[in-house]
Amino acid sequence: MSRLFMFEKPLGMRDTLPNLYETKQHVRSALETEMKRWGYQFIATPALEYYETVGTASAILDQQLFKLLDQEGHTLVLRPDMTAPIARVAASKLLNENLPIRLAYSANVFRAQQREGGRPAEFEQVGFECIGDGTVSADGEMIALAVSALKEAGLKDFQLSIGHSGFVKELFVQILGNEERAQELTKFLYEKNYVGYREHVKSLPLSSIDSQRLLAFLNLRGGMEVIGKALDLIENEKGKEAILELQELWDIVSDYDVAKHVKFDLTLVSHMSYYTGILFEVYAGNVGFPIGNGGRYDGLLEKFGKSTGATGFAIRLDRLIEALGEIDETAPVECILFSPERRKEACGLAKERRLAGKQVVLQDISGVKDLDACTNKYSDVTFLVGKAGKEPVK
Amino acid sequence: MSRLFMFEKPLGMRDTLPNLYETKQHVRSALETEMKRWGYQFIATPALEYYETVGTASAILDQQLFKLLDQEGHTLVLRPDMTAPIARVAASKLLNENLPIRLAYSANVFRAQQREGGRPAEFEQVGFECIGDGTVSADGEMIALAVSALKEAGLKDFQLSIGHSGFVKELFVQILGNEERAQELTKFLYEKNYVGYREHVKSLPLSSIDSQRLLAFLNLRGGMEVIGKALDLIENEKGKEAILELQELWDIVSDYDVAKHVKFDLTLVSHMSYYTGILFEVYAGNVGFPIGNGGRYDGLLEKFGKSTGATGFAIRLDRLIEALGEIDETAPVECILFSPERRKEACGLAKERRLAGKQVVLQDISGVKDLDACTNKYSDVTFLVGKAGKEPVK
Repeated sequence: MSRLFMFEKPLGMRDTLPNLYETKQHVRSALETEMKRWGYQFIATPALEYYETVGTASAILDQQLFKLLDQEGHTLVLRPDMTAPIARVAASKLLNENLPIRLAYSANVFRAQQREGGRPAEFEQVGFECIGDGTVSADGEMIALAVSALKEAGLKDFQLSIGHSGFVKELFVQILGNEERAQELTKFLYEKNYVGYREHVKSLPLSSIDSQRLLAFLNLRGGMEVIGKALDLIENEKGKEAILELQELWDIVSDYDVAKHVKFDLTLVSHMSYYTGILFEVYAGNVGFPIGNGGRYDGLLEKFGKSTGATGFAIRLDRLIEALGEIDETAPVECILFSPERRKEACGLAKERRLAGKQVVLQDISGVKDLDACTNKYSDVTFLVGKAGKEPVK
Repeated sequence: MSRLFMFEKPLGMRDTLPNLYETKQHVRSALETEMKRWGYQFIATPALEYYETVGTASAILDQQLFKLLDQEGHTLVLRPDMTAPIARVAASKLLNENLPIRLAYSANVFRAQQREGGRPAEFEQVGFECIGDGTVSADGEMIALAVSALKEAGLKDFQLSIGHSGFVKELFVQILGNEERAQELTKFLYEKNYVGYREHVKSLPLSSIDSQRLLAFLNLRGGMEVIGKALDLIENEKGKEAILELQELWDIVSDYDVAKHVKFDLTLVSHMSYYTGILFEVYAGNVGFPIGNGGRYDGLLEKFGKSTGATGFAIRLDRLIEALGEIDETAPVECILFSPERRKEACGLAKERRLAGKQVVLQDISGVKDLDACTNKYSDVTFLVGKAGKEPVK
């Protein structure tokens, strides 16, 4: 292979070196432990799925899919998210009881990047889904568990923003007359382009009252007071129902004692079409992107032949670790350097220290080229070299 | 999507349901803990690599690679093993100190299957590599750590077979005259086709002494006594050196007190070209395939610009779990069923029980369609339904 090319990795692909590996393992384990405490069962699904099943059902844009052909000419995709595979498993294997089921996962997902921009093409999501439960209680549980799991992982300063895709749709269609125009305006929210939103609203042939309503909508952010303001803005029944769901959700997160981490943001649109009800994003500290997001997706299971509701949440492990800041999880490693005549003694000493919980490298001294570098690398070095019977030299 | 197709997964791809997931996590954790105690540092590498770097350097047959094209027309592969990616990382980032480095991994690897035959196309390997140490001590450490890790994982009845690819090569080339003929005969060993081997030997135009030597070679299996027999068979220096390495290895595994799990099998050929010295396979109970294998591969690092030796070992997690037999790692899950008026009480009770280490599902009773099925599913069900103030009913 060419020398220049030989250490390269594909666009957006990264190595995880020991310190970050340990941090990820520690944080993942804290999240998983809390999810299990809440009765969630972990499953794993294949990295490759059929495009026709999971690829098309996923919420991810087609251009972000890694595609390949199998030997029979079927298109395969590297899973771009875990929600669609979980829905496949739930629909095919686990939903026969007709019960709400609670599933969780820690898995890498894949998103092809168009250019070098620092975005990873492979990253880990730790998430959970409650399938077959249409109550607002299930949505509230997503939020309460997200808060609880993030706290277990050591995150202190974070905020969960809650929106409702049904409310946005009802309000926009009611004012703008049809779904196409509603989608056009929604796109500005999806891109968080509020300047563009205002300009677009002002350019529309609307009564000044309707125009004001659409501009006032941008202010629907905050605590319980948002509920009253939203009810004033919306006129139709379905829109009001959406707000009453949010009101119930507020009671629920209060009962869970997590309301202080929660605020409403009715301008929140995490996806153009995927979510069907309550949805949420978590922001923390100085991380520019949400460290987690989720919501209700009542349409997905139908694609797998089961018409039942579902709600879920996924944490981006890389962003959570960025929000947590520097953590050094690597434990000190000792080294025992030996020469062959004292190998047995060295094996015994290493065993003893390992049983005492230490991390111990046992190293034949003739395998070391640079002794100084070796001494610097380890927290403690013991020499068992030369004739037996001497005391270990440190 | 079509109804028949919708639950399908690509050839050789599998879901991991909760019980197996827990078992895998438990066993993986035991292996990882032991590897860390021995001073191995875990790293992770991307699922996708360039074909030109890792794909061609890997020990896996080209037809078993999952290949795809990136947007610039480069061929990518799903990593078929972890040894080549680890060599890439070690050569590019970690080997500047010129020290032996000890790395470990738990990762899924990918091997395209040609037809439905029950072989997985994605499976997990837990392994470790010692890079930059050419001593037999390093080979011995691979074996001792493999034994120790497998014991930690709960495996009792297993055997490690040790061979030496250098010995086989020297003996065959010496008797058969050239490498091509040696490879032809080696292929029977690789396929473990000993009948074919004997027939092939008898068909060759050899002196009866040489013919006898090649047939006697098949008996080089057993304990320390194999060393003497092998020295009798081989005449050249390099071949004798290989056997002296095995003799030293025997002393080392004795010093580690793991000799009872080890035997020699000089007919062992795990790969046609990859290994350059001592190599080993682990067999357990009734599992028909090795649950782990490894050896010295001194040629690989050179492909990444560093001429240094390396030795490693990888455990197939799926086969190890098969060897361990039935394990049920799933913990019992309790359920608290509530109606909205007692939700706060239910949240409090769930929190209390979770803090006490229990796994507790908190379920809004209006989200349950079949109460009997629910009661059967959980180890314990508490009803907090109706007016507050009543005692919890079980």
